[in-house]
Amino acid sequence: MLIRKMPHLSLSSRFQQSIAPDALRSYLAEFISTFFFVFSVVGSSMASKAAGDTSGLITVAIANAFALSSAVYIAAGVSGGHVNPAVTFGMAVGGHISVPTALFYWLSQMLASVFASLILRVRVPAYAIAEEMTGFGASMLEGLLTFVLVYTVYAFSDPRRGPFGAIGPLVIGLTAGAGVLAVGPFSGGSMNPACAFGSAVIAGKFKNQAVYWVGPLIGAAVAGLVYDNVVFPPDDAAESIRGVSDGDGV
Amino acid sequence: MLIRKMPHLSLSSRFQQSIAPDALRSYLAEFISTFFFVFSVVGSSMASKAAGDTSGLITVAIANAFALSSAVYIAAGVSGGHVNPAVTFGMAVGGHISVPTALFYWLSQMLASVFASLILRVRVPAYAIAEEMTGFGASMLEGLLTFVLVYTVYAFSDPRRGPFGAIGPLVIGLTAGAGVLAVGPFSGGSMNPACAFGSAVIAGKFKNQAVYWVGPLIGAAVAGLVYDNVVFPPDDAAESIRGVSDGDGV
Amino acid sequence: MLIRKMPHLSLSSRFQQSIAPDALRSYLAEFISTFFFVFSVVGSSMASKAAGDTSGLITVAIANAFALSSAVYIAAGVSGGHVNPAVTFGMAVGGHISVPTALFYWLSQMLASVFASLILRVRVPAYAIAEEMTGFGASMLEGLLTFVLVYTVYAFSDPRRGPFGAIGPLVIGLTAGAGVLAVGPFSGGSMNPACAFGSAVIAGKFKNQAVYWVGPLIGAAVAGLVYDNVVFPPDDAAESIRGVSDGDGV
Amino acid sequence: MLIRKMPHLSLSSRFQQSIAPDALRSYLAEFISTFFFVFSVVGSSMASKAAGDTSGLITVAIANAFALSSAVYIAAGVSGGHVNPAVTFGMAVGGHISVPTALFYWLSQMLASVFASLILRVRVPAYAIAEEMTGFGASMLEGLLTFVLVYTVYAFSDPRRGPFGAIGPLVIGLTAGAGVLAVGPFSGGSMNPACAFGSAVIAGKFKNQAVYWVGPLIGAAVAGLVYDNVVFPPDDAAESIRGVSDGDGV
Repeated sequence: MLIRKMPHLSLSSRFQQSIAPDALRSYLAEFISTFFFVFSVVGSSMASKAAGDTSGLITVAIANAFALSSAVYIAAGVSGGHVNPAVTFGMAVGGHISVPTALFYWLSQMLASVFASLILRVRVPAYAIAEEMTGFGASMLEGLLTFVLVYTVYAFSDPRRGPFGAIGPLVIGLTAGAGVLAVGPFSGGSMNPACAFGSAVIAGKFKNQAVYWVGPLIGAAVAGLVYDNVVFPPDDAAESIRGVSDGDGV
Repeated sequence: MLIRKMPHLSLSSRFQQSIAPDALRSYLAEFISTFFFVFSVVGSSMASKAAGDTSGLITVAIANAFALSSAVYIAAGVSGGHVNPAVTFGMAVGGHISVPTALFYWLSQMLASVFASLILRVRVPAYAIAEEMTGFGASMLEGLLTFVLVYTVYAFSDPRRGPFGAIGPLVIGLTAGAGVLAVGPFSGGSMNPACAFGSAVIAGKFKNQAVYWVGPLIGAAVAGLVYDNVVFPPDDAAESIRGVSDGDGV
Repeated sequence: MLIRKMPHLSLSSRFQQSIAPDALRSYLAEFISTFFFVFSVVGSSMASKAAGDTSGLITVAIANAFALSSAVYIAAGVSGGHVNPAVTFGMAVGGHISVPTALFYWLSQMLASVFASLILRVRVPAYAIAEEMTGFGASMLEGLLTFVLVYTVYAFSDPRRGPFGAIGPLVIGLTAGAGVLAVGPFSGGSMNPACAFGSAVIAGKFKNQAVYWVGPLIGAAVAGLVYDNVVFPPDDAAESIRGVSDGDGV
Repeated sequence: MLIRKMPHLSLSSRFQQSIAPDALRSYLAEFISTFFFVFSVVGSSMASKAAGDTSGLITVAIANAFALSSAVYIAAGVSGGHVNPAVTFGMAVGGHISVPTALFYWLSQMLASVFASLILRVRVPAYAIAEEMTGFGASMLEGLLTFVLVYTVYAFSDPRRGPFGAIGPLVIGLTAGAGVLAVGPFSGGSMNPACAFGSAVIAGKFKNQAVYWVGPLIGAAVAGLVYDNVVFPPDDAAESIRGVSDGDGV
């Protein structure tokens, strides 16, 4: 059910695969999930202001946790539940999704984010960095947290995890929520370039946009490489897969 | 255990089924669950005011998430855990529940909501829309979120989901909670016509009642059609059911 | 693993069972879990005041949800995870635990609550009712919520629930959390006589103590009777048990 | 998959095991998870202040719950998901991890905490005790809660728990969150010596450091001994393992 290492194929046959009915359904699933995630996260920030909360920190963090859990859950059986260009990038770097398919995932995620921001009539970008922070520092914080987020997605999509697979979507949501609580007022707490992009497009302000792309994409790539090659290397994997998944059928 | 596509039957035999002991137990289960959900959601809004919170946004969102998770969980094995006329409507549109049974579900949900509002001595309807919003805009927001909610219920009740089924009630609750965080101060964040109806009956004020019915029912119907026909079409389904549910028995 | 209908035995052999090593381990498990639950719930109320929060409503509700989930989880395999005299009473009424054993459960739960309140140096009872409420009204609210709580415990301990069993401890916690959010400032939001008793003993004030016993015990008894006899009657049960638990081994 | 009772081996062969590739992967997994946990918990405390929240109590508690759930989840299949020197100590006392391996776990956890505190530019230690508390009282509170935390980890890593294993990482997180809510403003709510150590190193202030070591280590040791010898003794265990895990394959 989950996309693992792809076999070697020519670019054209990979492109063919990326427009097959199954693939198109994946793009729709990514669109729906990313729409809901961005709508909830950006909306919660606006709603918290409208409601007169002292700070939106916990509101936005919980919106991240709740919405990402749901978004991953409803897309998990179709597209793998990326809901985030950084996750798709991390999966492509690890060879678990082909480059043409990844590009269509990105397109779906971006469009969904722009659409959600449009409906919410966003006036200001969803994320900002604190005055005392440099762009480099903010991008590093976002990158570190995206590393953990993508690492969690790798753990979730790893069939060797057996019985833990079931709670994966919840844990991915909690990881994002904890990340927002840790860095929200400092670097914004995005960990998702699509979310930053969509709100920036509708607000018409692209300041610091690079912060939410460079760090997270690097963090995502490193997470994929570390997970597959260092912590759970393939040989070891093959063995564990047999040992665990026979009993559980997960 | 979960109600899937119904076979073709005459209306009278469907009505017979809808008053069989199993069906009556379902209505009671819907009554208990909807009572608890409405009691918690409407009660939390009143409690937050009584406690002097700056805003009830996060309190009501968490009450939605917690109470809906529980309400779906305790009814899941009996009635499917709809707890919401929009969900029942979306299931009827998809052909997963017969029209007579759906009407009794609605009746149980409405009565439960009126009863919960009565015990809470509700004075004002549970939901209101922001001054700057039109009824159409508010209903669209409610409809979009109800689309996601019903889509999540479809995913939960889909036996092809395998190991993810177990956390479904939690995810449905989180979806509702994220929805409240996103639109609470704008369109109210109901996603559940019964909740809006019961509090309006006891408060005696039906202003904007249509907002909480039109959008959500349309969103629910679209969710059912998209899930069954586009994202997880039946043919594909039959195959997956065999592939996954053999191993898990879910 | 979970205690279901007991066979008919003489009172003396039941008493023998209630002091067997397995039973003693159950009492210790109830003591540890109830201690942690009361410590967290009563502590969170005191901590929220000490931290200067505007209101403790959400803090105490989340403490209830988190602590009860954990408390039920760690005791589930030993004592069934009651952590609450009302739950034990509801299980005894349904015939799922013998009266002598139930009395030892109550003793463990009370002692644990008194011990937790002693360590926290409680000065005022953990729960109070709003000025505008009568004792009868408050006890009815507490009873209604305890009905749902015990009903949820019945659902959790029902082997027919299959894959949903795994998330049961979480759902029981969420039910308690939603209950606090709904009625906290009105009737206190206890749903657990042990919690009210322990803090009252150490504070030396027993005003309204009956509120937290009468309603909850009645609600618990009704929940057990409704679950076993109306919603999931035994005959139907036997069938379902075979149908579901064969596949899952839960 | 989870480390249970170790066979008797000489110290040198245990040391050999502790530097084998599998062991090195465990240390890296502990490093990543502890880094994320400390980063989230200490970061959330700083973020809450920066955001201007009235109190950080609920923010830090939720950061604990979310981050610990994720941290345990991603490390569970590799290192057992300790993320806490007290847990490692409790596991060593129970004989579930060898002393040389435990020392490398501690080293990884400490380094991760120092590294996380360095990146966050911590100025003050993460935990402080209330003026009216003695060091002994605070250490006792921390020890009591660490007892419950380690007891929960024992329950999670016990294969006899069957279907409950899947939600274990979530429950461990909730236990920590409830603990913070109960004692945050009084003793700090650490339950994790690494977290207290790392922030103290970077802040350069070691006042009350003993509070966060003595109580938690004693609580952890007692938890391991009580779980293994009193509540779930080994003989009883062997039997249960056969009875439950056959059906579930967990």
